[in-house]
Amino acid sequence: MQLFRFPDRNEWPKLLARPVSDDEQIGKTVKRILSDVKRNGDAALKKYTERYDGFYPESLEISHIELEEAEKAIDEKLKKAIALAAENIEVFHRSQLHPRKKIITSPGVECWQKDVPIEKIGLYIPGGTAPLFSTVLMLGIPARIAGCREIILCSPPRSDGNIHPAILYSARLAGINRVFTIGGAQAIAAMAYGTKTIPRVYKIFGPGNQFVTIAKQMITHYGVAIDMPAGPSEVAVMADDTAEPAFVAADLLSQAEHGPDSQVLLVSNNEPLVHHVIKEVERQVKSLSRGQYAMKALENSRIILLRDNADMIDLINDYAPEHLIVAVKDADSLVESITNAGSVFIGNYTPESAGDYVSGTNHTLPTHGYAKSYSGVNMDSFIKKITFQKISPDGLRNIGPAIIAMAEAEELTAHKNAVLVRIQEKEKK
Amino acid sequence: MQLFRFPDRNEWPKLLARPVSDDEQIGKTVKRILSDVKRNGDAALKKYTERYDGFYPESLEISHIELEEAEKAIDEKLKKAIALAAENIEVFHRSQLHPRKKIITSPGVECWQKDVPIEKIGLYIPGGTAPLFSTVLMLGIPARIAGCREIILCSPPRSDGNIHPAILYSARLAGINRVFTIGGAQAIAAMAYGTKTIPRVYKIFGPGNQFVTIAKQMITHYGVAIDMPAGPSEVAVMADDTAEPAFVAADLLSQAEHGPDSQVLLVSNNEPLVHHVIKEVERQVKSLSRGQYAMKALENSRIILLRDNADMIDLINDYAPEHLIVAVKDADSLVESITNAGSVFIGNYTPESAGDYVSGTNHTLPTHGYAKSYSGVNMDSFIKKITFQKISPDGLRNIGPAIIAMAEAEELTAHKNAVLVRIQEKEKK
Repeated sequence: MQLFRFPDRNEWPKLLARPVSDDEQIGKTVKRILSDVKRNGDAALKKYTERYDGFYPESLEISHIELEEAEKAIDEKLKKAIALAAENIEVFHRSQLHPRKKIITSPGVECWQKDVPIEKIGLYIPGGTAPLFSTVLMLGIPARIAGCREIILCSPPRSDGNIHPAILYSARLAGINRVFTIGGAQAIAAMAYGTKTIPRVYKIFGPGNQFVTIAKQMITHYGVAIDMPAGPSEVAVMADDTAEPAFVAADLLSQAEHGPDSQVLLVSNNEPLVHHVIKEVERQVKSLSRGQYAMKALENSRIILLRDNADMIDLINDYAPEHLIVAVKDADSLVESITNAGSVFIGNYTPESAGDYVSGTNHTLPTHGYAKSYSGVNMDSFIKKITFQKISPDGLRNIGPAIIAMAEAEELTAHKNAVLVRIQEKEKK
Repeated sequence: MQLFRFPDRNEWPKLLARPVSDDEQIGKTVKRILSDVKRNGDAALKKYTERYDGFYPESLEISHIELEEAEKAIDEKLKKAIALAAENIEVFHRSQLHPRKKIITSPGVECWQKDVPIEKIGLYIPGGTAPLFSTVLMLGIPARIAGCREIILCSPPRSDGNIHPAILYSARLAGINRVFTIGGAQAIAAMAYGTKTIPRVYKIFGPGNQFVTIAKQMITHYGVAIDMPAGPSEVAVMADDTAEPAFVAADLLSQAEHGPDSQVLLVSNNEPLVHHVIKEVERQVKSLSRGQYAMKALENSRIILLRDNADMIDLINDYAPEHLIVAVKDADSLVESITNAGSVFIGNYTPESAGDYVSGTNHTLPTHGYAKSYSGVNMDSFIKKITFQKISPDGLRNIGPAIIAMAEAEELTAHKNAVLVRIQEKEKK
């Protein structure tokens, strides 16, 4: 980890800059895959599955029997853990629903907003070394609570052609209707355009590698929505002399183990703490199964020493981290000044991994500074808010003159007429 | 208007298809403008203003004096109308704010969601024949209520170098801090990248021509959010024998007058009504100042006759109109079945123009079928929802085993350690 002691504010942007990847070549490949799947449907999906996942699939869909039988492969301890996580995710996300409120804005003018679930939702779950079944819960449970009618899931098959049973078990628990064994940009294309086997969806969620990320961005130009733009995962830890070096080190490492491109930032006003943390990191990393990834990520990561809380808060708001751990005195009041972050973990006993799995908050969060304008996944991500209005004849007489005056000023005669024709008709009666 | 009588369901997609514009050439121009502004800042802005708006600006910013003096150019009747619109917009949008709720998901585990305004917001208001000051209110007022710290507005100058006083007056009323006389893709570029004069913003709102729309889409790849993708404006009217032909005709025309690419759709189960509406359209169009635009839009617009309410609702949900007027018997209960629409107008006395200006609902709405996955602009558009969690030592002991089990199954040892190191430390004490 590189240590920067009391850098000037004008150096901050350089210190906080994320790596920018040159994705032009990947973009070309993704474009080719998208148009191939659009034209050739299932045949293209099978071809790419053979090319990238190493085998030619007879069927692209997991059968209901396989879905049901996945449960047998999950041990009881994990089942109990998943049940607790699912319950907390459900409780927290249900609390985000709001009753419909009818508002009388002017006499006779009634307006309201109605939450309507997005009908067709597609989830993407990456393959890779470990099965990300927790993301299945984080996306599937709110989609079910929202009332989305069709929830499908795509995930690349392992070399035996199957999907890890923990993913299938979590999918069934979350109420996902159908699961398909396809991955990569081809999975995104299939959900965006639809094929004979894969239904077209209106919004696509979930993390993925650069191919998946770029495919998701491209399909937004063709009428399909996505959860949010995605980059490598990040944590910032804000720590003072009340923080426990061993805890801070464990948190930095749990971010770093995600992969060599993970972004890890420690911000502190206390130099001795920082040196204790560095020592702890070196000690703890030895026992990690993914220690080599973590070391690589830590090479690029930064420790920034600053004078006081005000500076630390400003720097963190400039950086807009995906995850923020606040291990300082008076953390409760200090976090009120946080304006840019995805999810915030308060105090010494709130590790990021709690929010990754069980606390109930969502772990699909904005990276790469997007926390300045995007929320993490929440109930709103699965809902559209349709507005309604109903005006009585008297109501229209009340607000009609204002509509007419504004339509005239915008030189829209027909807008004005739509009011006039109604008021005149009413007066005739 | 073209009449389609009882088309088969498999013909619906063709009937409901929106025109797709080939924007490759525009895309190239926009890309050039974006990179020019990024590199050359204000100089590029002045160059494009001279090229596209016909004069070389000394200053790009409207002075505070000009902003204040705009009021003098607005007559009292219009001021009163704007005041009523502003009040209703404020009342309806304020009703969308929700108090913070702290949720205990497991004993000792407290989670909450906090609404935080997006700090820097940019609004784009097109120029053109008529001043769209109503859009200034629709975007500026919710941004102010949300608490956005910096709200700027860009709009192309008229030939005298100024912006219409109704836009300036509405901007000041909405609490917009700074107004700049730039338009087109160069305005979007300026707000996305920032220049010496124009501050960089985190999210850009507002309608525009194809150059503006494509520029907005492009800058989403560089970390700036936008309100929503945009296409030509649309209305669908659902009418049965209880509808008033003159009202329906006036509503179709008030959509059609927006321009030749406006999308107008009439859906009915009553053939006599349809013929009355056609006659009324022909009668009313003669008195319109923008009649020639309206006629052009109506040439491409469609009337679809269907057997019953169920078919009409299905077709409308397939189309997902920006605006939907429901002038049928039992409209109140029928609208509960509407799942895809931007804003819905219920009954014979609720014209679209009420929602365009005064009722209080927002008029920035999803077009081109995006209502299947996007909401119109609402308070959420100006807010990020940051999640927070605070876990007590006992709380971590409660959920710790579940975190550990899930981290193990996902093969993330450091995630597990972040819990273990805390529980063990606690036990030592």
